[in-house]
Formats: sequence, structure tokens, C-alpha cells
Amino acid sequence: MKALVYHGPGEKAWEEVPNPTIQDPTDVIIRVETTTICGTDLHIMKGDVPAVEKGRILGHEGVGTITEVGSAVTNWKVGERAIISCVTACGTCQYCRQNLTSHCQTVGGVGWIFGHLIDGTQAEYVRVPFADTSLYKIPEGVTDEAGIMVSDIYPTGYEIGVRDGGVKPGDVVAVVGAGPVGLAVMATAGLHGASRIVAVDLDDSRLEAAKKDFGATHSVNSGDADWKEQVLALTDGLGVDVAIEAVGIPATFDACMAIVRPGGQVANVGVHGTPVELKLNEAWIQNIRLSMGLVNNVTGEMLLKMIAEGKMPVEKMATHAMKLDEIMEAYEVFGQAAKNKALKVILKAE
Amino acid sequence: MKALVYHGPGEKAWEEVPNPTIQDPTDVIIRVETTTICGTDLHIMKGDVPAVEKGRILGHEGVGTITEVGSAVTNWKVGERAIISCVTACGTCQYCRQNLTSHCQTVGGVGWIFGHLIDGTQAEYVRVPFADTSLYKIPEGVTDEAGIMVSDIYPTGYEIGVRDGGVKPGDVVAVVGAGPVGLAVMATAGLHGASRIVAVDLDDSRLEAAKKDFGATHSVNSGDADWKEQVLALTDGLGVDVAIEAVGIPATFDACMAIVRPGGQVANVGVHGTPVELKLNEAWIQNIRLSMGLVNNVTGEMLLKMIAEGKMPVEKMATHAMKLDEIMEAYEVFGQAAKNKALKVILKAE
Amino acid sequence: MKALVYHGPGEKAWEEVPNPTIQDPTDVIIRVETTTICGTDLHIMKGDVPAVEKGRILGHEGVGTITEVGSAVTNWKVGERAIISCVTACGTCQYCRQNLTSHCQTVGGVGWIFGHLIDGTQAEYVRVPFADTSLYKIPEGVTDEAGIMVSDIYPTGYEIGVRDGGVKPGDVVAVVGAGPVGLAVMATAGLHGASRIVAVDLDDSRLEAAKKDFGATHSVNSGDADWKEQVLALTDGLGVDVAIEAVGIPATFDACMAIVRPGGQVANVGVHGTPVELKLNEAWIQNIRLSMGLVNNVTGEMLLKMIAEGKMPVEKMATHAMKLDEIMEAYEVFGQAAKNKALKVILKAE
Amino acid sequence: MKALVYHGPGEKAWEEVPNPTIQDPTDVIIRVETTTICGTDLHIMKGDVPAVEKGRILGHEGVGTITEVGSAVTNWKVGERAIISCVTACGTCQYCRQNLTSHCQTVGGVGWIFGHLIDGTQAEYVRVPFADTSLYKIPEGVTDEAGIMVSDIYPTGYEIGVRDGGVKPGDVVAVVGAGPVGLAVMATAGLHGASRIVAVDLDDSRLEAAKKDFGATHSVNSGDADWKEQVLALTDGLGVDVAIEAVGIPATFDACMAIVRPGGQVANVGVHGTPVELKLNEAWIQNIRLSMGLVNNVTGEMLLKMIAEGKMPVEKMATHAMKLDEIMEAYEVFGQAAKNKALKVILKAE
Repeated sequence: MKALVYHGPGEKAWEEVPNPTIQDPTDVIIRVETTTICGTDLHIMKGDVPAVEKGRILGHEGVGTITEVGSAVTNWKVGERAIISCVTACGTCQYCRQNLTSHCQTVGGVGWIFGHLIDGTQAEYVRVPFADTSLYKIPEGVTDEAGIMVSDIYPTGYEIGVRDGGVKPGDVVAVVGAGPVGLAVMATAGLHGASRIVAVDLDDSRLEAAKKDFGATHSVNSGDADWKEQVLALTDGLGVDVAIEAVGIPATFDACMAIVRPGGQVANVGVHGTPVELKLNEAWIQNIRLSMGLVNNVTGEMLLKMIAEGKMPVEKMATHAMKLDEIMEAYEVFGQAAKNKALKVILKAE
Repeated sequence: MKALVYHGPGEKAWEEVPNPTIQDPTDVIIRVETTTICGTDLHIMKGDVPAVEKGRILGHEGVGTITEVGSAVTNWKVGERAIISCVTACGTCQYCRQNLTSHCQTVGGVGWIFGHLIDGTQAEYVRVPFADTSLYKIPEGVTDEAGIMVSDIYPTGYEIGVRDGGVKPGDVVAVVGAGPVGLAVMATAGLHGASRIVAVDLDDSRLEAAKKDFGATHSVNSGDADWKEQVLALTDGLGVDVAIEAVGIPATFDACMAIVRPGGQVANVGVHGTPVELKLNEAWIQNIRLSMGLVNNVTGEMLLKMIAEGKMPVEKMATHAMKLDEIMEAYEVFGQAAKNKALKVILKAE
Repeated sequence: MKALVYHGPGEKAWEEVPNPTIQDPTDVIIRVETTTICGTDLHIMKGDVPAVEKGRILGHEGVGTITEVGSAVTNWKVGERAIISCVTACGTCQYCRQNLTSHCQTVGGVGWIFGHLIDGTQAEYVRVPFADTSLYKIPEGVTDEAGIMVSDIYPTGYEIGVRDGGVKPGDVVAVVGAGPVGLAVMATAGLHGASRIVAVDLDDSRLEAAKKDFGATHSVNSGDADWKEQVLALTDGLGVDVAIEAVGIPATFDACMAIVRPGGQVANVGVHGTPVELKLNEAWIQNIRLSMGLVNNVTGEMLLKMIAEGKMPVEKMATHAMKLDEIMEAYEVFGQAAKNKALKVILKAE
Repeated sequence: MKALVYHGPGEKAWEEVPNPTIQDPTDVIIRVETTTICGTDLHIMKGDVPAVEKGRILGHEGVGTITEVGSAVTNWKVGERAIISCVTACGTCQYCRQNLTSHCQTVGGVGWIFGHLIDGTQAEYVRVPFADTSLYKIPEGVTDEAGIMVSDIYPTGYEIGVRDGGVKPGDVVAVVGAGPVGLAVMATAGLHGASRIVAVDLDDSRLEAAKKDFGATHSVNSGDADWKEQVLALTDGLGVDVAIEAVGIPATFDACMAIVRPGGQVANVGVHGTPVELKLNEAWIQNIRLSMGLVNNVTGEMLLKMIAEGKMPVEKMATHAMKLDEIMEAYEVFGQAAKNKALKVILKAE
């Protein structure tokens, strides 16, 4: 089969590789019909994730049809279609039983393994371990383009941003960063009854999309000298109830701490490459909670239900569609997302 | 009357001052019969809390008898005895109604005001604003020496450490810092069903007290080269469920982050004077929650109930007892707490 | 002034009575500009609430302007406009501090007192005790007709139905009874992310309104022989996640128990006049939770925020508008609500 | 092998039957070394559980050694010792993933299956389906006699009584019924910080045991004419915070409703054979929550941790010890539990 193979920092190819096979009785093989590229894949290509070895097939998002089923798989049959969760969960370790599947000890306790420790979904076929606890059925009326958003990005926005951020009915929520994950936070904040959803970013076109297509009620350009005052003016003056970081750099973390009210909450969704300074000398007295983490993808079924009901803005996330064998070009498009006004680039097998 | 008056950094005196009087209809005046000194008072004496003006009477803990009652006070009468909460709460602002009384907007949103923005309890009499929502009845069988622990220290340990730290039945809890507040955390962790309570400190005699008198089940001297391994050996190897910081310096914050398990929680109780480094580059993927804050003292009645039932170790916290007019000397004793093996120095009016 | 006075079962009059005056320093007097009639008032008129004595002015909902302020009131001034909460809360008793204000011991622990133990809001003026903790500010852009829904009916639907029913994102929620309170449940279920909101009632025109104006996504006429199967067909076959009773008779309670899934929740909002049979012999193994209660109205500010943002359907609840001095006729209209297609009859002072 | 076989109401025998064998790759076979009899077994013998067919081996509690392992079992090996959970959980269905394992759809959604739908543990060997998610490791220092309490009775008391009853620090908790399950409730209520645990029963010797061995702080004989007043005298007069029903008859359900405070909670643990009357006409206004259900046994590891730490009274529950082949006699002893002062009768293989 053909697959997108990592050959070290900056080096990758769409090339012929052996088809995957069942290795454990809990595996299935899936023919990938829809996949996409994540910001994490770009990090890997830069060499930022040293655990990824040369020869690894990348990708951790996908939708497809099951072509082979291991002997211990009870919930799936050949021919059924499924959404692949970015997180692989054995279902029996202590972390899985606590719904902290991203720390599943059986698969290594490293968050996710597709395109990281095992071959991923940017390929014609993929082996999915622990299929009974790592795949989602596709509800009627949900397209592949919508369904693939539940592989990673929407659960990440919802679980790590909205849920772990403790958004409550009536809350004013600021989301710092209007890239795909930030937009997924905005799109899901209504599930908890947010009264105002404030998009904060440097890029006016993304702010526009946030309001038009993803549920933001207000926007503030963080390049404005008075951006903080603009945010506070949307609150009662004391700060936002929940500030959600969706970029992954110290400046955006600082921005969240600067706008959260006493008694409020900061949820970190971004992937950080350096430490940040936490001003505990100021914050210790503020009764603030700070959360961080990788998605467990334990809310995928719920999100699919909301998508199927038409209650969650998802259709505008797939800005670009290409063929699977155009994936090298797709990396180019997604690599210059701002210039190309790209959110998610969808790749479809023929 | 006589009172302990702050005259600027390093300067204080036990001196004659005017008696307090009712200023608002929600005030009461209390004759202070028992008071004590807090670590915060030492910070103030060093000049670390610039909001404290010269001439201010210090102290925010106390037990006494009501001698005068404002016209709008409905819950208290002259002659009744009360425990004074360190936190003054109007009871009607949005923060008070959310039980975030330490941010009561009516009294300034600064956490606490006794011995800070208004005259405090290290005096023969004290004016207590918003008496209906800022005092506790003393249950039968609770001595002044036990009751005064509910002014500040036990609610601080419980609310900011145990409750905000999310301690759950079966948890292994590490408390870094075995001073009075750290010991109060240990003494109250059993309320949430902790299975192991690990005291971590540099001082062996405090570690001994933690185990003997305050509920710690294990202790680790953080001066040992392998202190971290010792702590992890008391868990299943992945880290403690909850790590509670009760010192207020970067090293102890770092220690907490180093021993908490993925999916665990760090609660900061200490008062910090400098920022800390938060290694978000490592922690972002760990699904950790971090909390911080000043006590709201909304659990005082519950804690008094447990003390009255003999279910909470409290009696060994008062290591020293002196007369109220010996308070200048008491500051010396408490100022060298380690040398004097002092936890709380109790001052009694005659 | 003029007021609607209860003279025993079936007897009432719009008649001249003395103006109310400040009795306690925590009182205010309000000129009633908008009021309405509640189903509870009809119960009282039937003699079902014996605690209501002859001579009592009825009504517990209202919006108006403050004309007099007691000496201990700190949050309100003469000339300010306010929404009156149906629940009177002292703010300092143990129940008020737990946000269980409907059991405020200071005012009697009987749920609500206006038009019950003290004179109510169906009058030109009303005395409001404990004004600091029993009134709401009216946010900009919220009309009296919308604001009065926060006196009782929307908080009742939200707190006792949606919140106490534990509605979670993705839940299928059935609301049995599409009268005003049932519609308020439907209108607020989206705050918790319900995926489907199923209105169940005998009256097709109310079911139509539920879907058109109050957020229901589906409806089932409970007069249909297969009504239960129709509801289950909207779930995965196991039952609804939350069933909310909004009528107050055994049959509707039974209906809720019949459609709730194992592990689900039943919230009782209706006012019952007789016991019900709880089939514990069947239900003991079902891991069901059942809640019941009177509104505490501690979420009024949140609801007003959502109304002000245009995020909560409220405008169609006021089906009829009349003048305050037409209140005798308004009782006739509301007393035959079904025939008149009446939800709430709004009464406006001139 | 030998096993205790049900032959219809009133008929049972300890007789020779075929050894169990692996049927599914997720099964293990366990040599039963310790088992016991549950009140449910007595119900079955009376014919109250018609789903139990003639020829069924009874019993759902046990400790033993694994003798055979199915091909898809990953967490267990031959020779390891395990505690058998009374609840069989597939680990992958929607209920299992929500930790509502007693409604596991894969095994029938009927609560428990051992000695009910499949052969049970009162035998020399037993087949355990879904072993990876239905067995517990035995921590060091925990005897079989203590460990078997985690098969059913302690998780039942804790999960359905204490946890679902929402016991909070400081609560006054009444437990109506001081049989084995009621005592397990009392033994675990301290995990949530109960201040007072009031045992209510008709049998003075059980009340004595409750206080002496299982953590009750007070007791009331419900045969006393003023039993209710005695309970209320242990509260502030308004009722207990949580009332837990541990018998299973209408009178004890009524007793719980009679003593719970407004805003309190009633948890039903008992197995009921008839409906009860719920006085919604009185209770609707009381803001009471009522829970009921079968144990999920998702807290067994936590309870074992507490037992291993010596923090949970468990050792006095095993009042009688007999040999496994004396089980017919053991049923006699347990069948007259009150007369024999029997709590749990432990049966040991030789």
C-alpha cells in the first residue's frame, strides 16, 4: 500500500510500504477513506517529537471501513465503518477505567500512539489496536468530513478546554487562539451554557470565521494595544470566568492569566515547547484553577450525537479537500495555513 | 485599651489606643479573650504587605465575648461568645453568594481585612464588620484553644489544600511543608478519605509531630538525596494523587510538580513572594490540575463539628500559651518557631 | 392602595388596603409595575394552601421601582428598578449560606412567603424583606415581560428540572407537561447541552408551542396508546437520560419512571396533592436518582444574563397582557388557560 | 467437582457437577478458596428471583486462584490469586464506560449474573467471564476473610449508600438497618467525613456491634416509641443530612423519609419486594434527593487500599467460619442470622 512515511526532520515521502496485519487479537485493520493532518504532524516533521522514529507512518485521525477483525474483538465486524480515535485505550488499566485513557499504561502512558509509537492513519490501511475501546460508530447523517473532527480536534477542544475549564451556564469565556483547536473550543462552549464566547487572536480573518462559523459572540484582536481592556469590557470588569489557552506559547498563557477573574479558571489546551512563568506571587490569593492535558477522547459519542442533531458548528472546519495521494501537497497547504486560510485539509481515498 | 500596633517594618508596640466603636449597623464589638499570631503577621512586620499602614492594630484570629451589637445584626447578642473568622464577608455580593467570600467586593476584594485594612484582633477589643456572616458560634465542648484554629489555619488547610486539591477516598496525598498550615492540611485530609498522608519537610522534629499528632501516615525528609524516590515508593510508582504545597517558595512548588501523578492535582496553599517556573512543556500532556487561593472560611462550622466530635486532631497545635500583654515576647517566640518548636502561640486575656 | 385580597376559598377582591410600610431595617417598598398570576395562586384560591389566611394579598412575582429603603439595606436605592424573587432569603442562616434559600429558617423555612405568609405582589405596592438578598437588577435590554419570568418560573424550570435533574451534554431529556413550568424546563435544558428535548403532553397546541417557541426538538402526545414507545424510539431504546415531571399528579410521575433509562434521573417539578406509588421493587436495581424541591432562585442572575444575550427563548411566555386593575378578569383568563391558550398573563400598572 | 446447586424454591444440594471450562477467550477459571452466602441467595432459595433456573450453582462472592486463562485475557496469569467481583463487566459497552457496570449490556443488563444467569462461586471452581475487568488483585496484608468483603458487601454499602447518598464532611448520617450491608455502610461513611453515624435497628445486639466494631457513633432502637425524636436529637433538630435504607421494606423507607432534613438525601440500599408510598405531597417542597441501585463495584480497589492501610473496620464482619463442604449447614446458620448472631459466614476450601 501507499503511506506517508517520516524519514527524519524535514524528510517525508508518500511511498509504497507493506500492508498492516493483525498483531493482537484485539486489533482490527481499517481501510482509510478519510484522513487529515494535525498541527502535531508539523511538530513531528520539525523534529520536535524525538520518540517518532524514521520509517514511521504519520497521522492519528481517520475514518474508514474495517477489513479485518482480530479474534477477541466483539463490537466490530468486517465491512462496518468507523471513526478512529486519536487515543488508543486498552479499556482495562487503572487509567482507562478512570476515563483518563490518554495515560493508558498498556500502550505506554504517552498520550497517543498513532503516527508516534505505531504506524498511523495517513495511509491506505491502518492497524487499530484495542478496537473495542478505540473506535466510534458513525451516526446516521454524519459525513466523513464531520466525523473526522471527532478523531481529535473537537474532543480536544471540548474535554481539555470547555470541560476541564469548568465552563458553567452564564459564563463569559475567552479563547486565546482561533486556530482549529481554539475554534473547536468555541464550537463546544455552548454545551455548557456559556453566555459570551470571546475569540482572541492576531488574525482578523480567523476572528471573523470564529464569529461567523464557530459560535464566538465577540472578538478581540490581541494586537491592539488595549486588547485586555477590550476583553474586560465584555465582563463585569473583574475578568472572564474561564480563559482558554489554545496556542502553546508563553505570551498566550500570560494573556489568559491576565484576563481571568478571581475565582476563575484557566484551561491550557496548547502544546508548549518551553516553560512559562507562573506569577504565584500575584495569583496565590486569586482562587484560580489551572488545568492542562491531552485529550482522552471519552466524549466522542456525545459530540457525534450533537453533530448528528445539527447542534454543533462543524461543517466549516474542513476548508480544503484533496485526494489522499496528494498528501505531500496537502502538507504544503496546511503548513502555510494562515496564508491559505486553511483550517483542516481533508484527504479522501478514491 | 491596649493593642499591638504596627509602626512600620520591624517596629511594633503593645500600647494604649482608643477602644473600637460601632461604625456600621452590621458591626459588633468583641472583647478578645484568646488570640494568636500568624505567619502573615511576620510577613507584615518585614514590610512585605505594603497595604498595611502605620498605626494599624495587627491580628486576624480570635475568640471572645460580644460587648456591643449594631442595630442590623440579627444573629448575635451581647454576652455571646464567638470565634472570629479571618475573612470578613458581607454575605450579599456576588462573590459572597458563591461562597468565594475572600473576594467579597464590599470589603475590598483583598482576601482579608483584619490587621490589614482595618484594626485587628491582637487587642483587648476588636470591631467586627458584617458580624452576621463573619463569626462562628462555639460548639459545646470546644475550648478557646481549639476554636481559634478555625479562625484561619484549619479552614485554610482544609479548603485550599484538601478540598480545592480534590482529595478523594483512597488517595495518596503528599503535603510539602509541615509548618502549622501544612499540619492543618494533614489533620483534615482524612475528611476526604485519604489512604496515605505523606509529610515532606526538612525538619525531622516536625515530621515526627506530623505523624504523632496530625494524621500523617508516612514522612520523608526532603533533605535526603532520594526524597523523591522515597515518596514515589509510597505510591504505585506513578506519583501521588494530590501534592499540596504549604511553604510558599519555588523549590516546594517544583517538588509538588515532581511527585504528582498524571491525572493528579497540585494545590498551592503557601504564600509566594516570587513567580515560579511552570514546566508546561512537560506538564501540558499530564492532565494535571493546579489550584491556589486564600481561604474563604466557609467550612468553619463543619470543622467545629468535627472538632466537637473529637474526630480531628487539633489539640497539639497550641504549643505555647502566654498572657495577652506578653504579646511582644510571644512574637519573639513565634518568630523563631523552629528553635522553639512552636506551632501556634496562644495569647489569653486575663 | 389597591390590591388583590384573598377572602377564603373561592373568594377574592381587588380592593383598597393600607399601603405597606418598612417594618425591618432590611426591608424595601416597591411600586409594582408588572406582576402576574401563578398556578400556585389558583391552588390557594381553591383552599389547598391552608397557611394562607383571609385578608392576605396574593402574588409572588413582580417587577417595579423602589420607593423606600430600610436603614440596613446596602445594595439598593430609591428609584432603582428590580425584579422580585419569589423566594425571600435572609442570606445568613445555614440554609441561605448553602444556597438552599427556599428553606431560609429566618423567614420560616416554608419555601416562599409572598402571598402566603406575608402580603404579596398583586398590589400597587409591596414590602420586600431582606431586599439585599431577595431582588435582582434588571440588565440592559431585558423588558419587564421577560424579567418577570425570573421571579419564579424560569428559575423553577432550570433549578428544579434541569440542574437538579443533572442534565448533561448529549442527554435526551423528556419533559412531561408542557404548561408554563414545563416550557421553562425546555427553554433552559439547552444550557446543559441536551441533544434532544422531548415535550410530552395531552394538548397538541401546547406541544406545537413547545417545539416552535421553547426549544423542544420532538413532541409526543401522551394520549396516544403507544406514547411510551414513541418516546423510547427517540432514545437508543433504553430510555431517556432525564425525565422531568412538570404537572404534579401520580400519572405523570409514573410516566417519568416508565421512560427513564437505567442510570438515569427523574426530576420532579410539579406540585403534588397526593402521595405517589414508587415501585422500588422494580426500581431498586435501576440506579436511578429522583429529585424534588421548591426553587431557591439562586440562578436568577445567570438566567437574566442569558436572556439579555438573546440566548434563551422567553418572549413567547407572556401570551396575554392586561392592566393591573383588570386582575379579577385576568384570573378568569388564566383559570381557563387551555381554552384561552394562556401561558402567563402579564399585568401592568399604568 | 462439588457445588451448591439450586433445584427450585426451598431445594438445594451440595453435589457433584462437571468442572467449568473456558467458553470465551476473555474467561478465566478460578479455584474457589473462600466464598460466602449473601442475603440474595436466601431470596433466591425462597423463589423470589424467577430468573434463576433449576440446576444453577449459587453464589456471587469469592476469593481464589486462577487455574486457566482465556486467550484474550491480558491482566491475569495462572497461579495468581484474585477477588471475584459480584458484578461482571465487559468493559466496552456504554454502561461499562460510564462505570455503571451493573447495567453492562453485554452480559444482559441485569445487575449481576453469578448464581443468577450463570453458575456461581459456591463451588470448587468457577468460570469468570471478562476477567480483565471483573477481578481484583489482593493487596499485601489483606486476608481472604477481609478480601471477600470487597466481592459485594463493602462496595454495596459504600457505592449505593455513602457515595450515591452524597455524604459530605460534617454530615450526620443515619443508617436504618444494621445487618451486614447496613454495617458496611457505617464502616465506609467515614471515608466521606461523616461527623455522626447513627445506627437504627430493632436488635440491640446489632446496634451494639455497630458501635463497637463498625464505626457507628450513636444508636437508636427503632422499636422505641420515640425513636424518631431520638434521631432528631442527634441533629440540630431539622433532620439528618443523609438517611440510608438498608433493609428493603416500606417501613424502613418511610423511616428514612421521616428523619431526613430539607435539602438532605435518602439512599436506598435494600432490595425491595413491594412498592412503597412516596409522599410527594409533603416531600415535593423539601429539596430531597433519593437514590437507589445495584452496586457497580467500581470502588473495590479503593476499598482494598483502605483495608490494607488498616483504615476500615472489616475484620468483625466474618462472624462464622466453616468448611466449603459444610455449606448446607452454613445456609442454616446464616438463615437464622439473628439467632446465631451471624453477619457473614465464611466458607473455606481445604
